[in-house]
Amino acid sequence: MSIAKMISAHPDVAGNLNEPLALAVRHAMFCAAICTSCADACLAEKMVEQLRQCIRSCLDCADVCDATFRLATRRAGNNEVLLEEMLQVCITACDICAEECERHAGMHEHCRICAQMCRECARDCRAAYETFH
Amino acid sequence: MSIAKMISAHPDVAGNLNEPLALAVRHAMFCAAICTSCADACLAEKMVEQLRQCIRSCLDCADVCDATFRLATRRAGNNEVLLEEMLQVCITACDICAEECERHAGMHEHCRICAQMCRECARDCRAAYETFH
Amino acid sequence: MSIAKMISAHPDVAGNLNEPLALAVRHAMFCAAICTSCADACLAEKMVEQLRQCIRSCLDCADVCDATFRLATRRAGNNEVLLEEMLQVCITACDICAEECERHAGMHEHCRICAQMCRECARDCRAAYETFH
Amino acid sequence: MSIAKMISAHPDVAGNLNEPLALAVRHAMFCAAICTSCADACLAEKMVEQLRQCIRSCLDCADVCDATFRLATRRAGNNEVLLEEMLQVCITACDICAEECERHAGMHEHCRICAQMCRECARDCRAAYETFH
Repeated sequence: MSIAKMISAHPDVAGNLNEPLALAVRHAMFCAAICTSCADACLAEKMVEQLRQCIRSCLDCADVCDATFRLATRRAGNNEVLLEEMLQVCITACDICAEECERHAGMHEHCRICAQMCRECARDCRAAYETFH
Repeated sequence: MSIAKMISAHPDVAGNLNEPLALAVRHAMFCAAICTSCADACLAEKMVEQLRQCIRSCLDCADVCDATFRLATRRAGNNEVLLEEMLQVCITACDICAEECERHAGMHEHCRICAQMCRECARDCRAAYETFH
Repeated sequence: MSIAKMISAHPDVAGNLNEPLALAVRHAMFCAAICTSCADACLAEKMVEQLRQCIRSCLDCADVCDATFRLATRRAGNNEVLLEEMLQVCITACDICAEECERHAGMHEHCRICAQMCRECARDCRAAYETFH
Repeated sequence: MSIAKMISAHPDVAGNLNEPLALAVRHAMFCAAICTSCADACLAEKMVEQLRQCIRSCLDCADVCDATFRLATRRAGNNEVLLEEMLQVCITACDICAEECERHAGMHEHCRICAQMCRECARDCRAAYETFH
């Protein structure tokens, strides 16, 4: 289940892996899953009416991370211009979601985990973005 | 099956619909579907090895359009900052995909339709973006 | 923006379109969008704590419809066994979501529209399924 | 980045985790990513015209795994009937994709990894399915 090993086996990569990008792929994939779970956990909380913005931010972040990890996985042909823009949007989505989840992190363990995941994903997307500059 | 009618029924919209945004939602949804179909049609062409970049661009564009129409559909809470960035990436994805598909439009009807769809989607995302400025 | 016209342009379809399947693709695509919108509209309602199951059903139905329309769009190679099973799950998802949304259709216009969309999508998936038998 | 830990933090789970289901979620998530990568790697191979069915199976399997892991992640409200059907479709998708990838596993390392991932995912979905019976 190693994303890095999988992308290394790509004929156009041939062992010459962009490691920061592979890490961003892995964490964007996880972040999409964790945000999907956090939205659902928030929905089940008694105080759900106070968690509307949090659910919204989590669902948006899950969608953006999902698109990001798919684009960043593909190595056939070329899409560098688009990938760079997508990484930037992913950073924005993760920062917004982390900020919102951090407001509830003291009360809800799922928000604490989700905020931490979003911060990691944003950091890794930044590192991946820098490999193109 | 009217997306605009559906979003109008949202409690936070209450009839006060952003029409250009609703049109962008509708066309990003269609563009995701058309690009998914074009990638698959290209894969079935005899000259598939000359359509690698086209398949790649179509798959990327489908993913970006998918994320865009989902984000742009949601009206609960707030996500304007993220939505604006996402619309911009969608414009980039559609322009890139349209340019690539236009190169094969003379030979492949699916590429001709896909290029046209991408141009429409890009135009509508630009119009939606402008409603925030 | 005609899905049927697009799939007709596929080299392996060559004008010999499975019309009920193309209609199921179109409506599964719309149903994914309408369910995404209904989940978000429910989230914004004052009585959100009474709409948890509805939001859950809409999100699940959106995911299932999304996978269904993507699979049913592809005509390269073969996947009939998988497609038939997927159509069946889509019927189940749409029936469950319709039943839940119908419970709130009197109070919420978005639930009324969503229930109607789900019933149409289930009906079209049944018709598409029958073309394989 | 522990999916199991995240789902355990859900208010309706409250530490009472369905471990086989959490493992199925994790592996369906990974399988979606690996299949997305394998489709793209196949597309870049010189012998792409011999890998059409493999690309098709990988894209279908990625879509099904994606829907499965999202549905199986959600614990708010109830969706057991739908989840069981979805797990069955995921088993079918993974078995079909594994069988196809195994045909190319001797030549393409990415197909070997993908086949192995699909077999693991199918096995875990079966184990998760059995927890409901």
